[in-house]
Amino acid sequence: MVRRSDSGEQRPTTIRDVAAHAGVSVATVSRILSGSYPSAPATRSKVMKAVRELDYVANANARNLAGASSRSVAIIVNSVVSPHYAHVAQGVQTQAALEGKLCIVGTTGGDAERELATVQLMRQEHAECVILVGNVVNNDAYRERMADYARALAAAGSQLVLCGRPTLGPDVPALVVEYDNTGGAYAITSHLLSAGHRRILFLGRHEGYTTSDSRITGYRNALADHRVPHDPGLEADGTMERSEGYRMIRERLAAGPPDFTAVFAGNDLIAAGARQALREHGLRVPDDVSMVGFDDLPPAADIDLTTVHVPHEELGRTAVRLALERRQEKVVAPAQHVLLGTHIIVRDSVRPVRVALG
Amino acid sequence: MVRRSDSGEQRPTTIRDVAAHAGVSVATVSRILSGSYPSAPATRSKVMKAVRELDYVANANARNLAGASSRSVAIIVNSVVSPHYAHVAQGVQTQAALEGKLCIVGTTGGDAERELATVQLMRQEHAECVILVGNVVNNDAYRERMADYARALAAAGSQLVLCGRPTLGPDVPALVVEYDNTGGAYAITSHLLSAGHRRILFLGRHEGYTTSDSRITGYRNALADHRVPHDPGLEADGTMERSEGYRMIRERLAAGPPDFTAVFAGNDLIAAGARQALREHGLRVPDDVSMVGFDDLPPAADIDLTTVHVPHEELGRTAVRLALERRQEKVVAPAQHVLLGTHIIVRDSVRPVRVALG
Repeated sequence: MVRRSDSGEQRPTTIRDVAAHAGVSVATVSRILSGSYPSAPATRSKVMKAVRELDYVANANARNLAGASSRSVAIIVNSVVSPHYAHVAQGVQTQAALEGKLCIVGTTGGDAERELATVQLMRQEHAECVILVGNVVNNDAYRERMADYARALAAAGSQLVLCGRPTLGPDVPALVVEYDNTGGAYAITSHLLSAGHRRILFLGRHEGYTTSDSRITGYRNALADHRVPHDPGLEADGTMERSEGYRMIRERLAAGPPDFTAVFAGNDLIAAGARQALREHGLRVPDDVSMVGFDDLPPAADIDLTTVHVPHEELGRTAVRLALERRQEKVVAPAQHVLLGTHIIVRDSVRPVRVALG
Repeated sequence: MVRRSDSGEQRPTTIRDVAAHAGVSVATVSRILSGSYPSAPATRSKVMKAVRELDYVANANARNLAGASSRSVAIIVNSVVSPHYAHVAQGVQTQAALEGKLCIVGTTGGDAERELATVQLMRQEHAECVILVGNVVNNDAYRERMADYARALAAAGSQLVLCGRPTLGPDVPALVVEYDNTGGAYAITSHLLSAGHRRILFLGRHEGYTTSDSRITGYRNALADHRVPHDPGLEADGTMERSEGYRMIRERLAAGPPDFTAVFAGNDLIAAGARQALREHGLRVPDDVSMVGFDDLPPAADIDLTTVHVPHEELGRTAVRLALERRQEKVVAPAQHVLLGTHIIVRDSVRPVRVALG
């Protein structure tokens, strides 16, 4: 609610108003609203009554709720179960809290119509920025849809941010925060090559999808630079799920004995599934087969996986920070493009390839 | 946008209007909006132009955006990084999609003021239900805050749902969807006792917190029913994170040799951290120490952990389904309370206790 101050101008209800109304200290109100300290039921009742009567909305971002000004940042993901999406969303939430904003996550289940509807919802709710995350088919239909989002949000005073997605070009008012997929894939493939591996099975080729394409490009570039002939037969098609890693190895080993000494799993989930399938076939990582992944998310630590660290939370934090900066500075186009680095995390899943003696 | 039909009454723009406006078939519009099929740039441009000009909002839930009617369900969690929260949110998203609703997730970082602000935001956005999930300190301040939410949301035509939290009593218009923490903890403790274990270390006591309290109650009840004396020294204090499991075991083994043959980790994350600390101390699971967890979430499968399955997604789906049913049937109070079952998932982390011979 908005109150008239002594000087007459309008101002939102503050915690002081609540304290005065309830006849207690500001500290008491804060303590009781936080719910994390003991307090006398009578005091609590007085305070909650004052909160109700003044329709007090706690904290700065929330006070904005009373006014028309926006107060939230939005992130839209396919699914919050994917550790990658969840950790980016966590970064968004962390930065939003620092900036005194609420954080809203929209989920689409990967459905383009739900994505469109969710973007429109966030626009109508005056989210200060709308962050879209992750793997896409980068075709004309996609780029046109994103360009429409970017213009519609800009027209509404909001800002489209693409996270871990390619740029849309200079004429589209979108902020792009990417990380170095190709560089990370190049580095981790080189790590296997330096250990003497030449037959490296890539799990999770998914042509047309940006994340898979950029990772497999790094894999192929590293092979080429090490003058290792590229064998397309060592690229297994699949999506980025644990069950897919299990399936790809199962099918491969059913077709014949392993024709590879190392596995480059397209992400850590694929690695976990592949590791299970190898184990069921009597093959241990790293003793029998070396393995690396990508993401450095659970379950990488639990399976001792050497992998590529992706700055998931930093992606989310950077997206929010830059978007809000642009708003404050009233920056419109040109589009902005940020690329965050990746690096290898060495655990215990790679052994030097055995050399046959004699 | 809302258009006037031939018969004169108002109706939202449909995909047919877009197809007619663009001079293409409905199938073409649908294909292009889905973004998942190739199509001629010229056609795509015509369709996207029509979408813009008619401000067409794709699909049923989205069409509601044009009107005042509500179209979304909201879930509020501490963090989407926690697998438990993420999987409940996934269930909410799945059911929301089935019911033609959007799904928005609010994150609070565990801050009560952000929770209050987020609930008020969701109320103002006319969410059809607001679902709060997980572990809480069930004190008077908490119950009073929840009762306020329940009444404020009911007054706004919405519905408070508490997921995995205790009921607030018959006079509060809240829907409660719980799962059987105590029963699950009783069953998994009995599983260890049946394997001959008598010194079972519980990791993650956190007095006052509902989830930990209900799990430790099941643990104590099972010991009592098996006539195994309860040793409070076998209950380690900690929160539900992986790093805490690691810390609790490290501290315990630093204090002296293991005085337990089995570990009951308060959840699977604690189990993963505890397992790593045991391994660093030269103790393997299950050969040297048996271990069970709780939740049946990643990383349970990757560490072969026998654990208690919690129907996370079903909690979310049930919360949405019941809340929307109540709205349709215009049910107000009395409060409704649902308890979902839990069961053991047996993997390879428990061995019969070794009996000294002779």
